[in-house]
Amino acid sequence: MTTVGILGGGQLARMLALSGAPLGLRFLVMDTVADACAGQCAPLLVGDYRDEAALAEFASKVDVATFDFENVPAESAEWLARRIPVFPNPRALASAQDRMVEKSLFRELGIPVPDFMDVPDRAALDAAVVAIGTPCILKTRRLGYDGKGQFRIRSTADVDAAWDALGAQAAKVGLILEAFVPFERELSVVAVRGRDGGFRTWPLTENWHVDGVLSASLAPAACDPELAAQAQAHARALAERLDYVGVFALELFCRDGVLLANELAPRVHNSGHWTIEGAETSQFQNHLRAVLGLPLGETRMLGHACMLNWIGAMPDAGPVLRAAGGHWHDYGKQPREGRKVGHATLRANDAAELARMLRETGAALGRMEQVAPVLAALGSL
Amino acid sequence: MTTVGILGGGQLARMLALSGAPLGLRFLVMDTVADACAGQCAPLLVGDYRDEAALAEFASKVDVATFDFENVPAESAEWLARRIPVFPNPRALASAQDRMVEKSLFRELGIPVPDFMDVPDRAALDAAVVAIGTPCILKTRRLGYDGKGQFRIRSTADVDAAWDALGAQAAKVGLILEAFVPFERELSVVAVRGRDGGFRTWPLTENWHVDGVLSASLAPAACDPELAAQAQAHARALAERLDYVGVFALELFCRDGVLLANELAPRVHNSGHWTIEGAETSQFQNHLRAVLGLPLGETRMLGHACMLNWIGAMPDAGPVLRAAGGHWHDYGKQPREGRKVGHATLRANDAAELARMLRETGAALGRMEQVAPVLAALGSL
Ligand SMILES: Nc1ncnc2c1ncn2[C@@H]1O[C@H](COP(=O)(O)OP(=O)(O)OP(=O)(O)O)[C@@H](O)[C@H]1O
Ligand SMILES: Nc1ncnc2c1ncn2[C@@H]1O[C@H](COP(=O)(O)OP(=O)(O)OP(=O)(O)O)[C@@H](O)[C@H]1O
Repeated sequence: MTTVGILGGGQLARMLALSGAPLGLRFLVMDTVADACAGQCAPLLVGDYRDEAALAEFASKVDVATFDFENVPAESAEWLARRIPVFPNPRALASAQDRMVEKSLFRELGIPVPDFMDVPDRAALDAAVVAIGTPCILKTRRLGYDGKGQFRIRSTADVDAAWDALGAQAAKVGLILEAFVPFERELSVVAVRGRDGGFRTWPLTENWHVDGVLSASLAPAACDPELAAQAQAHARALAERLDYVGVFALELFCRDGVLLANELAPRVHNSGHWTIEGAETSQFQNHLRAVLGLPLGETRMLGHACMLNWIGAMPDAGPVLRAAGGHWHDYGKQPREGRKVGHATLRANDAAELARMLRETGAALGRMEQVAPVLAALGSL
Repeated sequence: MTTVGILGGGQLARMLALSGAPLGLRFLVMDTVADACAGQCAPLLVGDYRDEAALAEFASKVDVATFDFENVPAESAEWLARRIPVFPNPRALASAQDRMVEKSLFRELGIPVPDFMDVPDRAALDAAVVAIGTPCILKTRRLGYDGKGQFRIRSTADVDAAWDALGAQAAKVGLILEAFVPFERELSVVAVRGRDGGFRTWPLTENWHVDGVLSASLAPAACDPELAAQAQAHARALAERLDYVGVFALELFCRDGVLLANELAPRVHNSGHWTIEGAETSQFQNHLRAVLGLPLGETRMLGHACMLNWIGAMPDAGPVLRAAGGHWHDYGKQPREGRKVGHATLRANDAAELARMLRETGAALGRMEQVAPVLAALGSL
């Protein structure tokens, strides 16, 4: 009997537990709050990630540990890794936690990135805005997610406001200035690397964000096979350099047919949720297979899939449940502004069928705005 | 927040809970033993199904109840149904619990059945053997499962032995004598009926038993569409007569191209496990959708699927996990002679690919015997 420990008890841990049960696995989830939604599907240990007593209890009850939450303190991950196997390794986690480290790594590996500069203080911000030019984005180096901790600088007139908003963070989590990329599309490649170095990617996914939060994903992304091969090669180079074990996502901007790396998410990723129904093996099961040293499952698609995120509150389930190929995912969370509470995946045999389903379901849900960009990408708006 | 109560905490309850979590459902499982395997995936209430206090506690905590176990006492089901919604309804459950009632119903609905006679005592057995002829099978009317409580009578010389083996059961659970059917194939149709009368079936499945226990299933069964239509019509007639809500399986013998009904299993069924990966919607999720009055999901196949049952102990997972399209299901049970401890499903795009996978995986597992009849049905042995 193997027990997998998961640091973080949100929807990612929940879906990991659900996909791991058929492998005969037990789970223990650790989270700071007692109503963490993964606790509905697996035993939950409530504690602070920095509390050694809690970590020790966690370590004593699990055979291997992984993360649903990339911002677990690096020292906690290291503390655990001295006692039990931890995948991905804490160094990989730490690299992905800091946008400066991450982007420097991209550059080092020859992966194109938008221009960026470290911003330790106000003078550095002024210099960086001059060097990079406007528009640009000031971001916290660490602890950002879902577009939080970001300020868009349209012209030099915005620099004061940007510093007012984020300057206090410079000393705490660091700041970075990035060139704003007027991208045509956002893509992600979700990949998995096994303990033995085996490597697989799911087909490239196209993503749409609203207010910095993922709104919809489409797989496979309608794109040039060479671009897909390039994205895969970037993902592989990163995984090998970091000796990464498990699933991760590499988020990319596509501009003038060139891929620019945005960030590496060191965990199962929202843009891979469609793999539950849309791929032979889901990202969740393959993450567990990787972490446990089991053979990786096939990542081929089963048709075409579109994922729609539910933010804030769940819509009426009827239209999705009535759609042939409609699949519903309610994370069992309390509704709250801006919170990811669930998603739906529509699966179809081909792109035309998917477009038809999306149009019908979008209309029935009263969410044409959310599905419109996906329909456009499917060439049927 | 809706909580579904499940009477019986075996692998069926476990897979129901896993497939219901994405609908945002909570579960409460009731079983007589504390290590019931569904308890690893959902809260477990340990109690006797005849204990009113335990039933009352169960009823107070759930919004609707269903079964993973068809032999829940009919009175317990009725007791519950007076307090909370129970699906399938207790009358349907009771009909399926008694082979005499069940087979009489088949006959009444014009569904062909093997000859059968009630056997209240030893004299009735002698008379029935004369009337039905040999070979025939003596079975308990109630509480049989996985071929338990059966005695095969090859010639009149076996009648004494049959009575020695099962005679004591006549007064307790009743006995029935059935003609032995030298069938060419065993088939099952897994079907679901919603609260609104909506009705769907998954494609016909061919099944192979070893020692009365399901060993392998293949879907879709390679068979005449007219036969499939007939099986579906039988299932629908039964569901409508019983006002059945939820998933059930109708097990059939096929002899000289004619279908004979064997039994109705009033629950999700082992011959429908392949639907988890092999169909757009699994039997587990559709059972829950039906029970909750939600729209039923599509039952179309995603390619071709074969399920292999693991009895007694789990084999090495490697060969299945390494197979493209191989899916593993470990129920988290202690190994025990004759116990269903898990299964694997192989999914492929077409029958030829499935045959190739089966041959390779069967060889790697050292289980060619188990896969041989499936390969023969696929026309590739
Ligand atoms: N340099 C940029 N140029 C243009 N758009 C950007 C840039 N950086 C971020 N964005 C937009 O904001 C979104 C979120 O940004 P980013 O990925 O940096 O944030 P995050 O908080 O780490 O989000 P997530 O939790 O989705 O990973 C991006 O997907 C993109 O739409
Ligand atoms: N009348 C019959 N003629 C030939 N074979 C039979 C007959 N009855 C049962 N069998 C064989 O025994 C198997 C199990 O029989 P049956 O379905 O009656 O048992 P059960 O205990 O209710 O099993 P299960 O739990 O699989 O429903 C059948 O699938 C079939 O292979």
